[in-house]
Amino acid sequence: MRNLTLLTDLYQLTMMNGYFQENIHEDIVVFDMFFRKNPCNGGYTIVCGIEQLVDYINNLKFKDEDIKYLESLNLFSKNFLDFLRDFKFTGDIYSVEEGSVMFPNEPIIRVKAPLYQAQLIETTLLNIINFQSLIATKASRVCFAAQGNPVLEFGLRRAQGPDAGIYGARAAIIGGCSGTANVLAGKMFNIPIVGTHAHSWVQKFDSEIESFRAYANVYPNKALLLVDTYDVLNSGVPNAIKVFNELKEKGYKPLGIRIDSGDLEYVSKEARKMLDNAGFEDVSIVASNDLDEYKILNLKSLGAKINSWGVGTKLITSSDCPALGGVYKLCASEENGKLVPKIKISEDPEKITNPGYKKVIRIYNKHNKAEADLILLHDEVIDTNKNLTVFHPIYTWKKKTFKEYYVKELLKPLFLNGKCLHERKSVMDIREYTKNELNTLWPQYRRIDSPEEYKVDLSKKLWELKTNMLNEKKQK
Amino acid sequence: MRNLTLLTDLYQLTMMNGYFQENIHEDIVVFDMFFRKNPCNGGYTIVCGIEQLVDYINNLKFKDEDIKYLESLNLFSKNFLDFLRDFKFTGDIYSVEEGSVMFPNEPIIRVKAPLYQAQLIETTLLNIINFQSLIATKASRVCFAAQGNPVLEFGLRRAQGPDAGIYGARAAIIGGCSGTANVLAGKMFNIPIVGTHAHSWVQKFDSEIESFRAYANVYPNKALLLVDTYDVLNSGVPNAIKVFNELKEKGYKPLGIRIDSGDLEYVSKEARKMLDNAGFEDVSIVASNDLDEYKILNLKSLGAKINSWGVGTKLITSSDCPALGGVYKLCASEENGKLVPKIKISEDPEKITNPGYKKVIRIYNKHNKAEADLILLHDEVIDTNKNLTVFHPIYTWKKKTFKEYYVKELLKPLFLNGKCLHERKSVMDIREYTKNELNTLWPQYRRIDSPEEYKVDLSKKLWELKTNMLNEKKQK
Repeated sequence: MRNLTLLTDLYQLTMMNGYFQENIHEDIVVFDMFFRKNPCNGGYTIVCGIEQLVDYINNLKFKDEDIKYLESLNLFSKNFLDFLRDFKFTGDIYSVEEGSVMFPNEPIIRVKAPLYQAQLIETTLLNIINFQSLIATKASRVCFAAQGNPVLEFGLRRAQGPDAGIYGARAAIIGGCSGTANVLAGKMFNIPIVGTHAHSWVQKFDSEIESFRAYANVYPNKALLLVDTYDVLNSGVPNAIKVFNELKEKGYKPLGIRIDSGDLEYVSKEARKMLDNAGFEDVSIVASNDLDEYKILNLKSLGAKINSWGVGTKLITSSDCPALGGVYKLCASEENGKLVPKIKISEDPEKITNPGYKKVIRIYNKHNKAEADLILLHDEVIDTNKNLTVFHPIYTWKKKTFKEYYVKELLKPLFLNGKCLHERKSVMDIREYTKNELNTLWPQYRRIDSPEEYKVDLSKKLWELKTNMLNEKKQK
Repeated sequence: MRNLTLLTDLYQLTMMNGYFQENIHEDIVVFDMFFRKNPCNGGYTIVCGIEQLVDYINNLKFKDEDIKYLESLNLFSKNFLDFLRDFKFTGDIYSVEEGSVMFPNEPIIRVKAPLYQAQLIETTLLNIINFQSLIATKASRVCFAAQGNPVLEFGLRRAQGPDAGIYGARAAIIGGCSGTANVLAGKMFNIPIVGTHAHSWVQKFDSEIESFRAYANVYPNKALLLVDTYDVLNSGVPNAIKVFNELKEKGYKPLGIRIDSGDLEYVSKEARKMLDNAGFEDVSIVASNDLDEYKILNLKSLGAKINSWGVGTKLITSSDCPALGGVYKLCASEENGKLVPKIKISEDPEKITNPGYKKVIRIYNKHNKAEADLILLHDEVIDTNKNLTVFHPIYTWKKKTFKEYYVKELLKPLFLNGKCLHERKSVMDIREYTKNELNTLWPQYRRIDSPEEYKVDLSKKLWELKTNMLNEKKQK
């Protein structure tokens, strides 16, 4: 397991040293992680990377060489550096379950810990959760566009470094992909891996037909042939059909063809006709080449004859929105043994934080559809025997009352007093959990273009606290 | 050092097994790595990541657990898996020097190796070089826009995983950034790290002025204060000035203020006036908040009073073009001891490859400005005593003749017969090399919007080979 203790912004360490000098480093504080916008103007976000966050926290330790490096910066007191030698996370972390569907502005991770500890972990917590959540969400959009066809993650060569390839593949599977080409990710996470051959295989042989024969010879049960090295319809597909016939005679069942360039609509339709006419109605047509949810949606609407989608660059980088802007904001700080709410104000109203030690509940109707989320102060209780009225935090006249409903509390303990309570789940189990989560959403929140905005409201008590704090700060 | 041997696409392994079964796996082949477009519609690309590529190659080894995993896939023959146990890279790799400025369609890395070896390394070679080259290039664009002001890399929390943060910081420095906030990158690569405090520092204290005083108390020589937690002009700057005066009385020199939100043009101009009026003409104004080369260019053109630029998300992800599309294509294959050129054809003319075992030279004028690059067959010789005429590979009537010129061969050996010849350089030395490289470019290739296209031509011999091969393949 990698030790990423120094993977942090320098200001976390300068602040930690400052708090230490001021002797307030052990003050208990609460930070919320949340994001302000769903990726790709979408209607939801799948939270992913919790397991890697747990590993990161469990492996926090400043090694001798780390301390020596920090010493060399001439920024930190000797006392502080000695103090770091015994660093151990001793706080509480609550988080939503990995694979959960979440929405803007609600806490998805809540850290309550001594100030210096909560500060150190900010950067890597955000790094891990922002990236994996981004890719899981993107994958879920691509799979939605593919309308049940398998989507395969092919992006490693264009991923932003090795980790992006590895953890991006993990997140893509959780978001709904059926497999990845990434072998190391397959080994690490026990997820399905896929792959056949490249253009270079075809080029290596004297002719395309020889290359196809050789491939079918080695993998008679897995003959999926790449048909666009020279000319799909005049060479690739006719050659593939010859080899499929040879396989059929020997009693094997060919799998399909892959097209990686050109006019995917026209070529897939023509190839389908040629395959069908040759009696290969069952073999698949796999398409790749710069695909994303928008291109797949378009090809689907045009009736392209594609059964399976290989998606590379645009999935593994989430190319039209390559970052989830998750933030980590101080919302409470202990003073004389009591948690006092804190707020960050901004000229930009969207950047004002929700103060206080909070929790989040999801409100479901009796058909198990999610109707709204509500952010409350930590000690508030909902009596589900009574009607529940929620209101929009800005347009407060927008109200909704729930009569038959039940609620779930979304934040669950990952660490309590530094003790890890996280139970590992397989990636395929998390994938299943995500699938169920997505099924609790009404379709209008899932659509790719201009989805409805899911309700995330504040309890009356929290709304009043926030309004009062804003009025007070702005009077000064 | 991490062993990334399994970090590859599954099809590399299925092809390797196929070649092994066909007993052609030891055939010597040549692959070129090149890209087809510069990032962000720019005029050049900085090649970066060569050192990590070398580490990757040097650490290639299939461990027992890797073999066991591959066995579990039921795809590979026992012989092949045994063969992998002794895998070692024994080929040649030529590459441009790290930090070089390169252009579309020219080989930047050339691999000549037994087929099975050349195939295995494709994916991770591309992964490493694509990402770091992307970020180095993006950083260079941002620094160009900042017109000599320091640019600081602040993106770790939004980077696409830990590696993207670490190697992205390295690449950003090579591309011209003055520092990074990433502590681990600072330690690993001995590069400058920077950072002061966050909004949470200000929130933690009862008032902004107390937080500033506490910071100045701990870091009297490094007082750079974040002034936008509550209200920049009505609270942040006046409080900073008070604390700067207190520092001045004690004989310290304050460093500056940082603004992380709001109207950077207006606020920086007003803050500058306030600071100047208080006698702090020397202190810096650092700006951050969703910056990139376009926003910096705009703020510069409006006369914003900003001395230093913190750039996060949009640099570390290269958000408007989050992938460099580098590819790795078979260009020659040994047959009876002779390298035979290979070509990949596509309906899309841009995707047709340059066949043959090739090299690249750069043509400089006597003022050391780069005038054009020329791709030649490996055994071609340029006699620089004679005039040299180059021509456009598509619009062949576009010609240029060089009279007083000299040439440099760009590809240099990294590995010969598996032996590593790479000499490590410090990141700061590579950064200096890149700076010199950029100085060899005429300004029209460096501008951010609509740069001129740098000439990359084919030698007559190579052009004829390609044209003949295309005619021949298309006749069939």
